[in-house]
Amino acid sequence: MADNTQVILVEKPAGKLEESHFEVRRSPLPTPGDGQLLVRNVLLSQDAANRAWMQGPTYRAAVNPGDVMHGYAIGEVLESRAADFAVGDVVAGEIGWQEFAALDAAGVRHCSDHRPLSHLHSVLGIAGKTAYHGLLNVPGIAAGETLLVSAAAGSVGSIVGQIGKIKGAHVVGIAGGAEKCAWVQDELGFDACIDYKGDDVSARLRELCPGGVDVYFDNVGGAILQAALFAMKGRGRISCCGAVSQYDGGTPTSPAGIPGLLVVKRLRMEGFIVMDFLDRDAEAERDLSQWTQSGQLKVVEDIIDGLENAPRGLIGLLAGENRGKRMIRVGPDPA
Amino acid sequence: MADNTQVILVEKPAGKLEESHFEVRRSPLPTPGDGQLLVRNVLLSQDAANRAWMQGPTYRAAVNPGDVMHGYAIGEVLESRAADFAVGDVVAGEIGWQEFAALDAAGVRHCSDHRPLSHLHSVLGIAGKTAYHGLLNVPGIAAGETLLVSAAAGSVGSIVGQIGKIKGAHVVGIAGGAEKCAWVQDELGFDACIDYKGDDVSARLRELCPGGVDVYFDNVGGAILQAALFAMKGRGRISCCGAVSQYDGGTPTSPAGIPGLLVVKRLRMEGFIVMDFLDRDAEAERDLSQWTQSGQLKVVEDIIDGLENAPRGLIGLLAGENRGKRMIRVGPDPA
Repeated sequence: MADNTQVILVEKPAGKLEESHFEVRRSPLPTPGDGQLLVRNVLLSQDAANRAWMQGPTYRAAVNPGDVMHGYAIGEVLESRAADFAVGDVVAGEIGWQEFAALDAAGVRHCSDHRPLSHLHSVLGIAGKTAYHGLLNVPGIAAGETLLVSAAAGSVGSIVGQIGKIKGAHVVGIAGGAEKCAWVQDELGFDACIDYKGDDVSARLRELCPGGVDVYFDNVGGAILQAALFAMKGRGRISCCGAVSQYDGGTPTSPAGIPGLLVVKRLRMEGFIVMDFLDRDAEAERDLSQWTQSGQLKVVEDIIDGLENAPRGLIGLLAGENRGKRMIRVGPDPA
Repeated sequence: MADNTQVILVEKPAGKLEESHFEVRRSPLPTPGDGQLLVRNVLLSQDAANRAWMQGPTYRAAVNPGDVMHGYAIGEVLESRAADFAVGDVVAGEIGWQEFAALDAAGVRHCSDHRPLSHLHSVLGIAGKTAYHGLLNVPGIAAGETLLVSAAAGSVGSIVGQIGKIKGAHVVGIAGGAEKCAWVQDELGFDACIDYKGDDVSARLRELCPGGVDVYFDNVGGAILQAALFAMKGRGRISCCGAVSQYDGGTPTSPAGIPGLLVVKRLRMEGFIVMDFLDRDAEAERDLSQWTQSGQLKVVEDIIDGLENAPRGLIGLLAGENRGKRMIRVGPDPA
């Protein structure tokens, strides 16, 4: 009988996440109990939030040392002991960083057998829906408004900016490195992109957004959030999606000007989680599909082969090395 | 001819505001030009924001050294060179810290000759409207929700909490000193009041709001905002009214957990200025009057006699010595 390969978080990182915090382990294939499924992992999503989960419980359980690293993945049902699921079904759920998992059917959902499956993580999955809901259903965006997006080359930011353009906004990105910024502008069609590693972000914001920013989509927190706060137009809206600058060790920094700037500029900052908008997912999928098919939205994926590469995949993601949605191919697509 | 008494800001305070930053000066009575009014100051409003104006321009011009200290006041028209205004009219506007002012009629508005006139600064004025709009038209409050209010004994907070009770909320205040807290609870009818000078605010919040805070009305910013952020319930709303802890010198502090807590708890923080809601002022006045007449809303005023006492009035306000709306009586009511 086949073994299972699992990646375990063996130590809670105090500072930056390193490969030594993980261990690859072989263990026996799990046996599904009543109401459970045996699922084979096909494509594992990697997200900056994975690192935040190690800091403690939030809207979900913390990842603790000794746990198979948590992760959302798409898989194939190999054995079903639950109604509504059959062998060969394509499903999504918290499979984790392992080849096989026995999962409660209640925590798993059917996926359309959309090909490529990777779209179910990128444009039609967590990245696309986070971008869609977090822009259109939190602050909203109107034609002619100025939209600022941090982590503009990342899985979510790359889609937020493109949706902004589709909606007629003037879109300015922030990303790390001149080459990445050029790509955001030339390939993704942002109007401009600020290199936070090379540019004076505040000065560039004054140049590129002389009338101020209407909507800031914040993926990073920290110093860039602070620069954005000062660049906001009166009655500006900030969608708080994440704070990747704060996840991977170091001293957390809080942006200056809170609440003072919120008061004098009448700003609104609002946090959200993609799951908050399940009731509008169908609409999101419809629009995102349509935009992809029409060529208005470019799907950018960054797929790494092999579960054993998951630790360095996440570490690289936190360092900003990815372009678009990073995922790990754990096994072949279902036939 | 009568002289004018003026209080001048002679030095921009670097740290705490002191009486030495002001100077009382006699000057000739101003002469209104075309389109102007000569107005006699009757009642001068004092607000924590007056101190913030010294920090630089915001939603309004900064107060600069050499300026007659800015201030909103109610006065009587002594001479009119503008249509729509007649001698004896009661008006409100930016009269400033002086007995007499020549003001552009465009910046002045008629007041109802409501007696006591002080209500036009307190319950029916900036305090009452700020409380009303900032609670009901920004985060809203529903029966059964938990409302937390800082500066609970202050001009705005004392009204916010009472409106919360009228709307059926569970209302917890934060104020400085055991005696003041007892007064907030016993006289104003809050369900509880935390003494930030004597209590561990976070621990008391856990005790008094075990299910978390739905709405936090923030008058203070800083450490209390931080404690409130951690005490918020998921999808909680924060109304950002002011940041008095940050106005009077010292190093500005930013609350930790921004944007992280906003994301994981899906919080909304929103700043506002009372003038944003001019179109709903009539409704506010109607409700506030009704509640006052029915005895559901207690009007708390703190009136100091004499313009020369304006500096120590504002300094004391910033130190939290007032209960309810502080104002300076500059002259007698119009006949």
